[in-house]
Amino acid sequence: MVNSFKTVAIFSSLKSSRVNKLYAQIEEILESFGVKRLFPQSSTILVNKPCRKFSDKYIAQNTDLVIAIGGDGTLLSAARKYGFKGIPILGINLGSVGFLTDIAPRDLTQKLKEIFSGKFMLGERSFLSTIVNDKGTEYISLNEVVVHSSSIAQLIEYELYIDDSFVYRQKADGLLISTPTGSTGYSLSGNGPIIDPNVKAINLTPMFPHSLNTRPLIVDEEKRIKIIVCDRGEIGISFDSHDIKNLKPGDVVSIKIAKPKLKLVHPMDHDFYEACITKLGWSLGVPLKSD
Amino acid sequence: MVNSFKTVAIFSSLKSSRVNKLYAQIEEILESFGVKRLFPQSSTILVNKPCRKFSDKYIAQNTDLVIAIGGDGTLLSAARKYGFKGIPILGINLGSVGFLTDIAPRDLTQKLKEIFSGKFMLGERSFLSTIVNDKGTEYISLNEVVVHSSSIAQLIEYELYIDDSFVYRQKADGLLISTPTGSTGYSLSGNGPIIDPNVKAINLTPMFPHSLNTRPLIVDEEKRIKIIVCDRGEIGISFDSHDIKNLKPGDVVSIKIAKPKLKLVHPMDHDFYEACITKLGWSLGVPLKSD
Amino acid sequence: MVNSFKTVAIFSSLKSSRVNKLYAQIEEILESFGVKRLFPQSSTILVNKPCRKFSDKYIAQNTDLVIAIGGDGTLLSAARKYGFKGIPILGINLGSVGFLTDIAPRDLTQKLKEIFSGKFMLGERSFLSTIVNDKGTEYISLNEVVVHSSSIAQLIEYELYIDDSFVYRQKADGLLISTPTGSTGYSLSGNGPIIDPNVKAINLTPMFPHSLNTRPLIVDEEKRIKIIVCDRGEIGISFDSHDIKNLKPGDVVSIKIAKPKLKLVHPMDHDFYEACITKLGWSLGVPLKSD
Amino acid sequence: MVNSFKTVAIFSSLKSSRVNKLYAQIEEILESFGVKRLFPQSSTILVNKPCRKFSDKYIAQNTDLVIAIGGDGTLLSAARKYGFKGIPILGINLGSVGFLTDIAPRDLTQKLKEIFSGKFMLGERSFLSTIVNDKGTEYISLNEVVVHSSSIAQLIEYELYIDDSFVYRQKADGLLISTPTGSTGYSLSGNGPIIDPNVKAINLTPMFPHSLNTRPLIVDEEKRIKIIVCDRGEIGISFDSHDIKNLKPGDVVSIKIAKPKLKLVHPMDHDFYEACITKLGWSLGVPLKSD
Repeated sequence: MVNSFKTVAIFSSLKSSRVNKLYAQIEEILESFGVKRLFPQSSTILVNKPCRKFSDKYIAQNTDLVIAIGGDGTLLSAARKYGFKGIPILGINLGSVGFLTDIAPRDLTQKLKEIFSGKFMLGERSFLSTIVNDKGTEYISLNEVVVHSSSIAQLIEYELYIDDSFVYRQKADGLLISTPTGSTGYSLSGNGPIIDPNVKAINLTPMFPHSLNTRPLIVDEEKRIKIIVCDRGEIGISFDSHDIKNLKPGDVVSIKIAKPKLKLVHPMDHDFYEACITKLGWSLGVPLKSD
Repeated sequence: MVNSFKTVAIFSSLKSSRVNKLYAQIEEILESFGVKRLFPQSSTILVNKPCRKFSDKYIAQNTDLVIAIGGDGTLLSAARKYGFKGIPILGINLGSVGFLTDIAPRDLTQKLKEIFSGKFMLGERSFLSTIVNDKGTEYISLNEVVVHSSSIAQLIEYELYIDDSFVYRQKADGLLISTPTGSTGYSLSGNGPIIDPNVKAINLTPMFPHSLNTRPLIVDEEKRIKIIVCDRGEIGISFDSHDIKNLKPGDVVSIKIAKPKLKLVHPMDHDFYEACITKLGWSLGVPLKSD
Repeated sequence: MVNSFKTVAIFSSLKSSRVNKLYAQIEEILESFGVKRLFPQSSTILVNKPCRKFSDKYIAQNTDLVIAIGGDGTLLSAARKYGFKGIPILGINLGSVGFLTDIAPRDLTQKLKEIFSGKFMLGERSFLSTIVNDKGTEYISLNEVVVHSSSIAQLIEYELYIDDSFVYRQKADGLLISTPTGSTGYSLSGNGPIIDPNVKAINLTPMFPHSLNTRPLIVDEEKRIKIIVCDRGEIGISFDSHDIKNLKPGDVVSIKIAKPKLKLVHPMDHDFYEACITKLGWSLGVPLKSD
Repeated sequence: MVNSFKTVAIFSSLKSSRVNKLYAQIEEILESFGVKRLFPQSSTILVNKPCRKFSDKYIAQNTDLVIAIGGDGTLLSAARKYGFKGIPILGINLGSVGFLTDIAPRDLTQKLKEIFSGKFMLGERSFLSTIVNDKGTEYISLNEVVVHSSSIAQLIEYELYIDDSFVYRQKADGLLISTPTGSTGYSLSGNGPIIDPNVKAINLTPMFPHSLNTRPLIVDEEKRIKIIVCDRGEIGISFDSHDIKNLKPGDVVSIKIAKPKLKLVHPMDHDFYEACITKLGWSLGVPLKSD
């Protein structure tokens, strides 16, 4: 096996000396493999020597891999910027492994050497593509789209359609639409199920719904989701808890799975369930009942 | 039994011809019992003939009963304005009975006659009293207090103390603190338990908590609840989904049961569980499993 | 379009005069289309004239369609008997439509005429195939497999593996493994998500787990699920709430999606979400908050 | 302050060398305080020297305190045997503190010395008293009563009354009725709320209910709960997951708070919320969302 990543961009959205230190460690390994490094203008990493910075567009067209150093937030950002354009992403966590950042600092050198020797797995993740009112901007989310009241403790009202089927008209604080990737994020806080990344599905979790008979609803990836805002209140929409836009009554939010997929570079021993065990504390076995 | 309600104020916070019509019906009955009527300036009811309107303060000092016409929202408002000052409240619903408004339009004449003949029950409900930073205004809620992010899909962070015990430091969208009265309101949307109005308790429901091991927590009425805001984000606090104030990092929110109690006037056949059956659809028996 | 169902078996697992009456109505329509009828020995339908009854095996080899009259229970039984052998199934409900029985009595004549004129849709559903200890009998479920304590209020303990990944060792009352078809059945009682029948997935819902950090877990159809029973208690396994077998410590339960699929015959206007609206009361809009 | 516990029984329901070792340590301290020790026949503790064993009845009449060594199970047993007869109970845990067993082995000597010097707090807990068919045996539970199907994956059906109000007729796997003490036990596995021991309430949690609109229901201690079994299936009732009896259709289960209260002896620094933090992992702060 040989290295297929000849040109690599290194990215972070965190300002942290730990990120800079990890970068230095990565640089050494990349050098030893003869890998060319590019620096995005939008990255926050401090590089010691003077170096040229490139636009996200240039990066997306001229790299074989983006290494994202930080937490899942950094990786979400890298995924939308570069991953959506087809560049594989490798995530390096500042602490222990995350759901998207597979490599912990203590394993960095060994894992990178394996990956640049061609020993890695590629995982594919879906993005959500959202358009408001059938025109204009396409918003991309790797985790979730949230339609929510912009005002505390105020309900919004909306109609939900799946393909052309009317599903329900609902009052709630909001509605959360997530990918399997996002199922271990915000959706989980709302009692949404955990969805294996290999499931081809979209999850809809009502947020504080004004009725007792709704549950998380999981539909297949082919489905088109349409939310029609009925309310006169203050309503917003957010993408990966990041972009926030206002919505107004009558606005139609159309959500579907985007064509481009995210390619995640994993070490050979990557296992989604091991990340669950670590991140969700499944190994703790917090005891509840009496002995 | 004789009528103990000599002077009665009639109140609504809704502008609706149905409210006005119900008022006309009520007026007739009150007249037949020789009851004096007072009109609050803050009421939205249209009275046909010219009449003097009184301040909430005057109403609170000079009436034996407030009749609130509308939904639970009108009753919450009447409860905070007059009920908190010791005036009993009687709720008349526009539609079917609500959790706080016991009388439906179709039973109006009969029930009112019984009540003004001295046949009624008094239910007692607790208010929450909230003070921010141990000084200044006391905010009153009959249903709930909500501390919540003011920004969509952004966590807040806070420390919770009960009396002087540290309970947890938590990231979440917010924290909802409700009375048993409020347990069938907003709290229920967040999977909070239904609490019989006779239970002397306060319910704390985390809203989209950033951890898997929290649950609704119910403490006795004697407890003092303290929430210390840790976050740098935009945070708000609301009382009965009504007043909304901003909070800032370091703010200390102190919540306890208020001394004054709300006296609710109920018809003799009032039954909390009948309201549950009606309002929560417990009689529907929606079938799920196969036969 | 022409009729492709030349020979049809009519089946029910209910003893009911309504079933017999519906049968009479169906018989007339089938006769008018020149369709040959077969009667399974295992059916409970009373047929007026003397007629030959056939074994399930014969039915499975000699019919083009099985019409199941009853509720979801009858359809589950027909699905395992004949559907698993490749025969399409059409469900006729005694009351309103169910999740699996699309045709209500009041629409019977019209819908049947359409279907026997070739106007219908075919839906495909997956079965779960379960083997205990890698040998012997294969148990088939359309809805779910449940591994559960056989003794009230006694925990069982098990290890869960997905493919070869260890997921968790858990104490609980039980573990429920369901198809998307089963997601609107027993699983829903345990707060499991509602899964569109088109999603290729298996849902695992822990039942009264002895830890706070588990959630329903959804995996793709390719996954092999392995449950190793650790406990010394009384443990049972059930398939579609039907067959019940005992398990003993050390038993290995292996569950995967079966190769054969169920073909469900639907009227042209069939819509999964309409069944949700009806069966789950989504149209009721039970109001909770104050106005 | 002086020691008010002159005669003390030491009890365990576990057979374990750790229990025996802890007993030896306790014996020494009791001796130094001149406390007389009694041994219940029903205890499993191995005492080195020959000693007389007494009946539970004798113990309940002749001791000032029972020290229970083990987990919550041992304490539940001691509470029903001796606590229900008015004897205060002190719980010593084998591991870290439990919800009922406040003293961990490492603090044993210090805490016991304090308690036998008169420095302790008394907590009061309620028992549930259950009678089937208004006659015969009274069953006592400190944690919970469970009415449940005795057969896997089979629904039972029952009517629930609170005082004389009909609440609902429900199909479910079962119904769990718990004290605040039991709220951190089995009830918690079914998503029941956590209830501070000072709340005067009873919690009812439906188990896998066959409807979407039920929630845990909390009523005040004065309420009488009546469950009428409607079903023809196999049904059982259990008390603290311990006693199990069969029920048959038409059986009436009457549950109320028992008159006698349990007196729990706590060290001076006892704090319910600290037990929550430890036992429920509230300090762990398992992170879910992206940074």
